[in-house]
Amino acid sequence: MVIQPIIDLVSLCAQKGIKNAILSPGSRCAPITLAFARHSEIKCRTVSDERAAAFIAMGMAQQLNQPVALVCTSGSAAYNYAPAVAEAYFQQIPLLVITADRPAEWIDQWDGQTIRQPQIYGKHVKGSFDFPDEFSKTDKVWHAQRMVNEAINLSIQFPAGPVHLNIPLREPFYPEVDEQFEFKPVKNIEVFASESYISPTQETQLEEKLKVFQKILIIPGQQRPDAETQESINLLASSGKAVVVTDTISNLQSAHTISFHDHFIGNSSIQEQLQPDLIVSFGNSIISKSLKLFLRNSTAAHWHVQDAGYSPDTFQSLTTVINVAPISFLKFLNLKLLQNQKYFTQWKSLDNLVKKSLTVALNKADFGEYKAISKVLNVTPDHAKIHLANSMSVRYVNFLGSRNQEIICNRGTSGIDGSNSTAVGCSFTTKDPVTLITGDMAFFYDRNAFWHNYSTPNLRIVILNNHAGGIFRLIDGPARQPELEEFFETNQALTAENLAKDFGFEYIVANDDESLEKGLNEFYSESIAPKILEIISESPKNAEILKKIKEMVASSL
Amino acid sequence: MVIQPIIDLVSLCAQKGIKNAILSPGSRCAPITLAFARHSEIKCRTVSDERAAAFIAMGMAQQLNQPVALVCTSGSAAYNYAPAVAEAYFQQIPLLVITADRPAEWIDQWDGQTIRQPQIYGKHVKGSFDFPDEFSKTDKVWHAQRMVNEAINLSIQFPAGPVHLNIPLREPFYPEVDEQFEFKPVKNIEVFASESYISPTQETQLEEKLKVFQKILIIPGQQRPDAETQESINLLASSGKAVVVTDTISNLQSAHTISFHDHFIGNSSIQEQLQPDLIVSFGNSIISKSLKLFLRNSTAAHWHVQDAGYSPDTFQSLTTVINVAPISFLKFLNLKLLQNQKYFTQWKSLDNLVKKSLTVALNKADFGEYKAISKVLNVTPDHAKIHLANSMSVRYVNFLGSRNQEIICNRGTSGIDGSNSTAVGCSFTTKDPVTLITGDMAFFYDRNAFWHNYSTPNLRIVILNNHAGGIFRLIDGPARQPELEEFFETNQALTAENLAKDFGFEYIVANDDESLEKGLNEFYSESIAPKILEIISESPKNAEILKKIKEMVASSL
Repeated sequence: MVIQPIIDLVSLCAQKGIKNAILSPGSRCAPITLAFARHSEIKCRTVSDERAAAFIAMGMAQQLNQPVALVCTSGSAAYNYAPAVAEAYFQQIPLLVITADRPAEWIDQWDGQTIRQPQIYGKHVKGSFDFPDEFSKTDKVWHAQRMVNEAINLSIQFPAGPVHLNIPLREPFYPEVDEQFEFKPVKNIEVFASESYISPTQETQLEEKLKVFQKILIIPGQQRPDAETQESINLLASSGKAVVVTDTISNLQSAHTISFHDHFIGNSSIQEQLQPDLIVSFGNSIISKSLKLFLRNSTAAHWHVQDAGYSPDTFQSLTTVINVAPISFLKFLNLKLLQNQKYFTQWKSLDNLVKKSLTVALNKADFGEYKAISKVLNVTPDHAKIHLANSMSVRYVNFLGSRNQEIICNRGTSGIDGSNSTAVGCSFTTKDPVTLITGDMAFFYDRNAFWHNYSTPNLRIVILNNHAGGIFRLIDGPARQPELEEFFETNQALTAENLAKDFGFEYIVANDDESLEKGLNEFYSESIAPKILEIISESPKNAEILKKIKEMVASSL
Repeated sequence: MVIQPIIDLVSLCAQKGIKNAILSPGSRCAPITLAFARHSEIKCRTVSDERAAAFIAMGMAQQLNQPVALVCTSGSAAYNYAPAVAEAYFQQIPLLVITADRPAEWIDQWDGQTIRQPQIYGKHVKGSFDFPDEFSKTDKVWHAQRMVNEAINLSIQFPAGPVHLNIPLREPFYPEVDEQFEFKPVKNIEVFASESYISPTQETQLEEKLKVFQKILIIPGQQRPDAETQESINLLASSGKAVVVTDTISNLQSAHTISFHDHFIGNSSIQEQLQPDLIVSFGNSIISKSLKLFLRNSTAAHWHVQDAGYSPDTFQSLTTVINVAPISFLKFLNLKLLQNQKYFTQWKSLDNLVKKSLTVALNKADFGEYKAISKVLNVTPDHAKIHLANSMSVRYVNFLGSRNQEIICNRGTSGIDGSNSTAVGCSFTTKDPVTLITGDMAFFYDRNAFWHNYSTPNLRIVILNNHAGGIFRLIDGPARQPELEEFFETNQALTAENLAKDFGFEYIVANDDESLEKGLNEFYSESIAPKILEIISESPKNAEILKKIKEMVASSL
């Protein structure tokens, strides 16, 4: 049987710019699956593990800057979406999460694949919508169409995020052979989003407030690259009007910004001279824990700039929330701020010192993760997109300073789940190389990311395999517990060699400088299959190298 | 720093009979991890993928009939537990789900691994508890202890199920080297559960009500084996007082019960003579869809017997809920019911006919899943525990009639997720063989079940690999859609050979009668490693065989 409101749902998705859907197989969701699969303007892919499917959809939506539809059957399938839904929520990535369900009267009647799906994503979706379960009244048809409009609009509206559409369905789920799907235009409720700018009155007020500050520290949080923002940031920094401290996930690093702060910001003997009197932040989270602690200990005022919505007090110093588009505020700062070359130079000279001494230290360092990542980054093309897994991969890259490539990392929830899938999703959206740098724990956790039938020839995976959750040896607390190896590092024996065979990936292994060099020579050459470069190192050795490099860099300051 | 209430939590777990914990690595959960790891009476295991960890814990708790503790760090880790939590909820298996969290003031401040954890499992836990985040008042200590008492008691109380204990923790997470953990007795609030029996007044009433019924059909739902219940059921059936129709997951099949009903219950020409006038059910869900439809079309009264709590109306005919222990009601029936040999014989002769014709049909059948499963079952030792994955594995076994082994299947939510892990958890609790029969989709979905460092030499895995979700070809609707292969079956190319290498499992492959015979010869021999028997067949061929056997059996009736 054809359910026209389901067909209309898909039509409306297409009208609203949704061009991709990730479907997971199921019978109850068949009417939705078929409607998506038969729509000529929506590219559908099937991924069987819903946990991976949802992260793949998220990885796509992030790049496309438009919602991707997810469709799964009823029951626990919906719960397997949850980790990615939470990540998308905190990373503000639009997703249209569609779950098939039984009609209300069949819930809790011990039928198969039936759980309590309404509101299942709790506080991790922007909205939960319960689709009508029958359409005998025309108002129900209107309700269904309006609901899809509301759901997609809400998902896109700033801050973007996932929405949940739960659809109760009755048998028969499948159309007869002669039944046609009629995709026709559906009422599309458009939203023209407001543009937030600084009004003339506010401009005067803010200018007045700005006058008392001489040392301006700009902290961009996680965001996607944006040329106009980059230009504005570069102008502010290069003119010495502000110091811009850029974590790798800010995607705003440049020759003018501070990118090696992780190496010196925790050094108490120099913190004094670095103290700002005004912190300006925009974007989402930052990654450097030392920077966070520095800012939390600061007595400076803190202005957070954000279009709309809730603003967290990440640095425990929030004084002012400015609800305008960051770009217009940065332009305003460029116009109004005065130079403070001294303050800028204090930061920049430390940054330069670290840059030099880190290069020396890495050259001298033994083979291990730190050096290996640095070498991988050196040969990664500028137009590549670099995905970083939590937890050590993103930290290492943050230590290594300024990058030209887009950096992507699941810092919404900072879980180790889903980073493979996010990279796979990204690789579906571009022909540019997509490089994933990950640890063995994150990599094997999400190995079902590759369990589908779609080719990803542009995918390049660097696995830092130390056969453990190496981060636990790198932080003091767990390293001194007798339980370190079994309950924290959880030594794991796998390498990716068999997995590479399973999925037809090219496989390169490196366990010293020479084999790494050799591996990297072929790593970015074109191929029909993705490539894995597995870098084998030892967790205690990595800890030792990290310590040594830290000391060498610190002694240069 | 040592947080005594966390130590006390673990002491209380031990006092209340929790002997096992499954831990997943993390830093925020370190105080909990260490307390569990250091308690001499609780066996801890580490599993890195929380989705697998939770199903493993559930598989253990199911066998042990006592809660197993789960411990994970904050953030999306908690959400990866959700599929197993839902399964445990509907299967009524006790779990103590402990998640570490940040204290309330740090939620939504863009720090790492922070989501909105309170109430995260929504309506799929029996209770959610928020642990105090500091203990400066002695009332807080009392609150913490009382809460752990309440949580564990609630989890065990009928119907058992998962409870969630969310524990906010502040740094430092790790004790100093010289700090000792002091496990001391903690106030244990005991619960003596009431025993539900039929009162003399009720007995008279029920006896009166029973008088009008001559054709009694007893339908036991999913439950674990129980000798006393089995005896009572056998007595009822063998004396012709009632017909007992036993799905494989009822674990009450015997020579006296009806176990081949799936083959004839849907046959409209014989349904008339099989009609009951009273349906008596107890236990949880049933699996046979034909049986469900038969019962839903019946005009009989339906009594559901259950100790306490909510009773679903699975057959749309519920008239009476009897809140007593099923065993006492069965004994009562044995005393009060009169024989109806004719009704019993009508069922039993059909059952016997099917049994014979099915054996003949299987002998004649070509090699494929159906025959292969039957051969596997024939050589499976009686003391083995058989785990069945959704969706075709459990259906085939249900077709094949009476079994002596305990049958386990995740029919709480009937998902394809988690069946490997549930079997792994089971294998941790017994030295008897644990046989998992699964399809390729369910098997690879949950491949991280094996990603840990604990040996499971008694585990035997039979994979029915047809490189697809074969069920979709076996049901009419999807089979006639052009999207069958890509969006329903989702052809997948993997075999388990590389996975077996990864985890050091013995690997046997069978693709015809001969290789299957050979494989089975060695399958149950003792070994230090688990064994995989992968049965390769073709989805269209399996569909053809199933159809043919169905027809042969039907023609014998």
